[in-house]
Amino acid sequence: MDIKHFQDRFNVHFENESLLKQAFMHTSYVNEHRDQSLEDNERLEFLGDAVLELAVSQYLFRQYPHMSEGELTKFRANIVCEPSLEQFNRDLSLSQYLLLGKGEEASGGRERPAILADAFEAMMGAIYLDQGFETALSFLETNIFPNVEPGAFSHVMDYKTKLQESMQKEGKNVSYQIIDELGPDHNREFVAACYVNDQKIGEGRGRSKKDAEQEAANEALQKRQS
Amino acid sequence: MDIKHFQDRFNVHFENESLLKQAFMHTSYVNEHRDQSLEDNERLEFLGDAVLELAVSQYLFRQYPHMSEGELTKFRANIVCEPSLEQFNRDLSLSQYLLLGKGEEASGGRERPAILADAFEAMMGAIYLDQGFETALSFLETNIFPNVEPGAFSHVMDYKTKLQESMQKEGKNVSYQIIDELGPDHNREFVAACYVNDQKIGEGRGRSKKDAEQEAANEALQKRQS
Repeated sequence: MDIKHFQDRFNVHFENESLLKQAFMHTSYVNEHRDQSLEDNERLEFLGDAVLELAVSQYLFRQYPHMSEGELTKFRANIVCEPSLEQFNRDLSLSQYLLLGKGEEASGGRERPAILADAFEAMMGAIYLDQGFETALSFLETNIFPNVEPGAFSHVMDYKTKLQESMQKEGKNVSYQIIDELGPDHNREFVAACYVNDQKIGEGRGRSKKDAEQEAANEALQKRQS
Repeated sequence: MDIKHFQDRFNVHFENESLLKQAFMHTSYVNEHRDQSLEDNERLEFLGDAVLELAVSQYLFRQYPHMSEGELTKFRANIVCEPSLEQFNRDLSLSQYLLLGKGEEASGGRERPAILADAFEAMMGAIYLDQGFETALSFLETNIFPNVEPGAFSHVMDYKTKLQESMQKEGKNVSYQIIDELGPDHNREFVAACYVNDQKIGEGRGRSKKDAEQEAANEALQKRQS
């Protein structure tokens, strides 16, 4: 791989450049070069996964101050998952740096989602190990988080739309009503009820009326699945 | 809670002391003080979970340079889990700082494993948010990791002992043999076979003979479970 190209392009300069090379070294490459003392990128992937979890967690924590723990956890799982990590790899054209064995290369490994996602994680592990958490975080803030915003993943939590679409197929009608308001003015909580054909099938609470309705729709969806 | 006592004891001094208080604030306490604008510790717990994942990952990564990604992942899951986090809380006598509602207090909430584990995570989230990752990491290096070592969790991966115990009950005999050695001297890999009553039931690879035998035992255990 062209280590210099990578470092200049992203303005991340490694103390130990072999770590960067290792991040893109697939196990198929290592197996074909047993004479050299190489290590594949799997352990770095283990580390990079945790770097991503924390970086994404603190990003969501600050970005969505009213989101509940449960919503944050779901949101995070939808960012730190193979399809998203594969996409991040593609967004940054990282597959050019991959080191693959001949067999893997011939069978299309350079386009394989798992290989692309794993290399993205391993790269984050290498940046963390060589440069520390703050540099890893700022790499993501510069190159990845701007693409996550605004709302690239918000469909994940839009329960009202999901319920609406599912009920429409069955020819049913969905409506919402705020049935209670709790707490003092500066710390208001709303309780919403969700009705399908005028029958109440869900209830939810939230800091805003919209959040409460979302939670009511979520409960309605869960009841229908169970 | 006695914020000063905590800070002096652990030598961690918060810019925003209300974050530390929030880390120990159970939702039952917030529910009983609706007149104050309080937030419970659940969002901090979300963040702290990720702080722990990364801190433990980098600790294991450095501590066990020959452990595979799969082994590291299993090991991490056995450290960042409710029973361990509850224990960390008890080791540091953190339950004294908990803020609980009266009902929760009366029903023994101060001893409840989930509440103790969650508060430990939330505390790590608060330290990270206020003082950054390096301080959170050094808190764990000072107060927690020394208890993890040496081998407090290693039983988790001791497949040979597990297999031995399970076979003894059935009156069967377990043995191992190194059946192959691969790679150059400086990067040797061993292949071990595991036999029960002289019948081969598992094979494994490792950087050392012991590791290879462990992996062979692991395969044998998995075959027996499936």
